[in-house]
Amino acid sequence: METPLSKRLGIEHAIFGFTPFPAVAAAISRAGGMGVLGAVRYTAADELARGLDWMEAHTEGRPYGLDVVMPAKKVEGVTEADIEAMIPPGHRQFVQEVLAKHGVPELGPDDANGWRITGWMEQVARSQLDVAFDYPIRLLANALGSPPADVVERAHRHGIPVAALAGSARHARHHQDAGIDIVVAQGYEAGGHTGEITSMVLVPEVVRAVDPLPVLAAGGIGTGEQAAAGFALGAQGVWLGSVWLTTAEAELPSPVLIDKLLAAGSGDTVRSRALTGKPARQLRTEWTDAWEDPAGPGPLPMPLQGLLVADAITRIQRYEVTPLLGTPVGQIVGQMNERLTVQAVFDELTSGFEQAIDRINRIAGRS
Amino acid sequence: METPLSKRLGIEHAIFGFTPFPAVAAAISRAGGMGVLGAVRYTAADELARGLDWMEAHTEGRPYGLDVVMPAKKVEGVTEADIEAMIPPGHRQFVQEVLAKHGVPELGPDDANGWRITGWMEQVARSQLDVAFDYPIRLLANALGSPPADVVERAHRHGIPVAALAGSARHARHHQDAGIDIVVAQGYEAGGHTGEITSMVLVPEVVRAVDPLPVLAAGGIGTGEQAAAGFALGAQGVWLGSVWLTTAEAELPSPVLIDKLLAAGSGDTVRSRALTGKPARQLRTEWTDAWEDPAGPGPLPMPLQGLLVADAITRIQRYEVTPLLGTPVGQIVGQMNERLTVQAVFDELTSGFEQAIDRINRIAGRS
Repeated sequence: METPLSKRLGIEHAIFGFTPFPAVAAAISRAGGMGVLGAVRYTAADELARGLDWMEAHTEGRPYGLDVVMPAKKVEGVTEADIEAMIPPGHRQFVQEVLAKHGVPELGPDDANGWRITGWMEQVARSQLDVAFDYPIRLLANALGSPPADVVERAHRHGIPVAALAGSARHARHHQDAGIDIVVAQGYEAGGHTGEITSMVLVPEVVRAVDPLPVLAAGGIGTGEQAAAGFALGAQGVWLGSVWLTTAEAELPSPVLIDKLLAAGSGDTVRSRALTGKPARQLRTEWTDAWEDPAGPGPLPMPLQGLLVADAITRIQRYEVTPLLGTPVGQIVGQMNERLTVQAVFDELTSGFEQAIDRINRIAGRS
Repeated sequence: METPLSKRLGIEHAIFGFTPFPAVAAAISRAGGMGVLGAVRYTAADELARGLDWMEAHTEGRPYGLDVVMPAKKVEGVTEADIEAMIPPGHRQFVQEVLAKHGVPELGPDDANGWRITGWMEQVARSQLDVAFDYPIRLLANALGSPPADVVERAHRHGIPVAALAGSARHARHHQDAGIDIVVAQGYEAGGHTGEITSMVLVPEVVRAVDPLPVLAAGGIGTGEQAAAGFALGAQGVWLGSVWLTTAEAELPSPVLIDKLLAAGSGDTVRSRALTGKPARQLRTEWTDAWEDPAGPGPLPMPLQGLLVADAITRIQRYEVTPLLGTPVGQIVGQMNERLTVQAVFDELTSGFEQAIDRINRIAGRS
């Protein structure tokens, strides 16, 4: 899978794998794709440095990237405590009620809060970038709007192309205006933050909107035939996130969660504001149901919701409270039915791609 | 675009075009695809016979099909009047309020009620089939679940394969168990009744679920590159409905509606129960907004909602009440920006398909 973009980035296959786990990102890069490490779980700069040191030691000199979550809108001088103070008491009470209903224990004094809002804040993302630019990262992706102009400039000074996720042609054009180099067209079926337009419609729409910028197809892609479909729609690469969650290398916090992912069907996700305040596709759980319940208070806007639920999510994960336990994941979760190595996923991507091309060449009367 | 299915059906291209308009269906068949005429607008058997006579006279002996709407569940001895009596007065009042708010005039005594529920009722569908089996139709499609066993048997006795729409792998397997020959996997992005799973995920899932039955990809397909994506996902054909609505041959009831379709973006549709009681994608209008409004009564289940709103829809169309005027259409409405002939749409489908195949062959290093 070679495109002008993959050649420019020095990768063998135009497959971009987003993951919060260094072991997965490094394995994707070693397999010939672009492993893109999510920085949001690193709340301290030295933690991120350790993660990137590890990447350096395990990628055999292959290119890898970093994904940050940097809001487009700058909020000057606002601390986490300021945001905490904006959360209505009724919402805090609702969280405690849901947890109490399921008998979720409190965290012990030594339990770290694993799921943090802080990675969402611009200050944190900036301190992450201070670290990241000391490493030879080959791609900087932003999962939340266009990064600020100075960040784009700084990346470009380091020779690092910048990618940004878009859920509509309008978002994509905004990225183009902001100097972004690569647009990730993320369809409705994708895990995490998504818009309403599906990959089948969104990818060609974005390709046309930002021509000649290269576009990656994201959402609904986990197999070689789905990658072939993404390329047929005009993408110069495919961006996969969900499919790595159940790989052998993924360090998910809970075996129960892995079992839930392996058992889930394509209809077992929901696009919900329960996790961050913006619509994000995730496993449907009694937690997401509670936030959809018309009798409840409903989710707060970003970033309040993320801060409100951070402790609760940590407790649910720590104690593996099955009915509440979820994770962002796309509709392809229905295809994720066994634990495979990253290399095995990659082998299927390349062989399934070849088979899909054989098939459509036959349909076109070319074989 | 030749597949085992297209060869079996005697069509040049594995393109299936669903449309309520005989002129469009005939043009699709003449162009080398399978025009599939929607029967739901024909409320009397002799009207359908006239439509099929017209098809015979204008398809140059090429294959064409018929699409009926036959509920899977049989409701014995229930008349339209019985169903009318089940509609709560508050819902009737709400309809009148929405119409009054927009100053929609009453129908005159000579105005025909153009949008009828009756085509949805099994009795009507059966009387349509009594007519249809006298014509050499080459495909019978059902848009609402598996048709009853005796209907499938009757079609098979006439040598006519039966297709049925499915929004999930479970629905698709149900069709297979019911003796259906072809499954139309209809993704979330499609116009009309849809489920939650998008084409990118649904098509391969259904292909695997009903193997070796042929599957048509529906939803999000209006161009040759989207058709190529559908074939890459394992489909043996593509099923297009929305794209024909703005063709020169389409007899839409209103120029205002055509202008709304041409102007709409991919984000201007909504999956709403406002029209039939089941979730169906359509243009978002103040009519669909009214039914989503938490302050309103919300839609009734099928078939009550369709009966409740039939007169209102007719009035809205008759008087071209722009803010309320809509139609079922998929997310590809954003690509439908000029009136083209059916032949021009077809020419783009075949040439765009070839270009998409060139592109992915280059990506695969095969050219």
